[in-house]
Amino acid sequence: MRPSPRLGVYLVTDRGLCLGRDLLDVIREAVAGSAGVVQLREKNLATRAFIELAVAVKELLAPLGVPLLINDRVDVALASDADGVHLGQDDMPAALARRLIGADKLLGLSVHTPQEAAACGADVDYLGAGPIFATATKPDAKAPIGLDGLARIRLATDLPLVGIGGVDAGNAAGVVRAGACGVAVVSAICSAASPREAAAALALAVRPAG
Amino acid sequence: MRPSPRLGVYLVTDRGLCLGRDLLDVIREAVAGSAGVVQLREKNLATRAFIELAVAVKELLAPLGVPLLINDRVDVALASDADGVHLGQDDMPAALARRLIGADKLLGLSVHTPQEAAACGADVDYLGAGPIFATATKPDAKAPIGLDGLARIRLATDLPLVGIGGVDAGNAAGVVRAGACGVAVVSAICSAASPREAAAALALAVRPAG
Repeated sequence: MRPSPRLGVYLVTDRGLCLGRDLLDVIREAVAGSAGVVQLREKNLATRAFIELAVAVKELLAPLGVPLLINDRVDVALASDADGVHLGQDDMPAALARRLIGADKLLGLSVHTPQEAAACGADVDYLGAGPIFATATKPDAKAPIGLDGLARIRLATDLPLVGIGGVDAGNAAGVVRAGACGVAVVSAICSAASPREAAAALALAVRPAG
Repeated sequence: MRPSPRLGVYLVTDRGLCLGRDLLDVIREAVAGSAGVVQLREKNLATRAFIELAVAVKELLAPLGVPLLINDRVDVALASDADGVHLGQDDMPAALARRLIGADKLLGLSVHTPQEAAACGADVDYLGAGPIFATATKPDAKAPIGLDGLARIRLATDLPLVGIGGVDAGNAAGVVRAGACGVAVVSAICSAASPREAAAALALAVRPAG
């Protein structure tokens, strides 16, 4: 059965931003701080090394009930039996990816515009919307859409939204108020002095107002 | 059913070495000159563009009965319904790839030593052995194994061998005499003034002595 992930605090990994710490340690800490999803993003690893890393992360996360998604690479997701894939607009079309991963895996898609969000078929489980704010993490990122851009995407789809791009504990609450059910972060956790405390602070910021 | 490719002249593509010509034109000419297999190798294309290119090449080759193999990327092979994959030692392990592509697709593996050749399971259909000679095509290539290295690999396996690395019409006959059933080339076809004539000259060089 396809898992229902807790999308509140969603970690996207970047080994280069982990301040020299082991990625598995950063992930373990982030999850202890309540990150509910981990997306493994590797743009320069050879396929075999990527698969080996994915298997190691999966072994870490599975007992904790935290799904592992693989960025872009359906082959790596299949080989590591990850819980799903996250696709960009330049990656495999979602319908094709769904056919390859099957009905029981998660499929996320990055969108930048309401049009892209509206064009999503039933193959997609959630959307990553952004970049919300300017970010130095992703050199090829598009122009920030802002909270108003996120709100327009919210109107264009019924899918759960995760806001990404320049999000931190200071601005995460606004991202949720604009219509996201959570925030995806890279450096706010990977480069934090304490990934655990950073994830916990994000979780506090995105919790529903009581 | 798994196709039985004609391995005599095996084209590995490199768009950067095509002298500005369209890759599809180069492939068409190479096949007209009797290349019997095409391996699409792309190390820098986004996944979607790689899939689109693979689909275009597949449409070109399928009516000609020439199999299309995808270098490294099992996801692209599955998405484009290519005829198989060719894996390096840093790519997905062959047994995993076979499980993902199924029994009806071709699976090739690059080997550098008799040990790697002997370690191949029944999942592999043929081996690419090399680099035979020094080559400028692949910057990260290992040390040349020479014709004697190829002959040692020949003794270590019953699989069909294709020699690769610095092979051209002038030295291809020696590669076959050392135990290969064909030669895989990149620049000898991609960068030839006439890819068709280059492929034809290679075909002549590797034909069994009559």
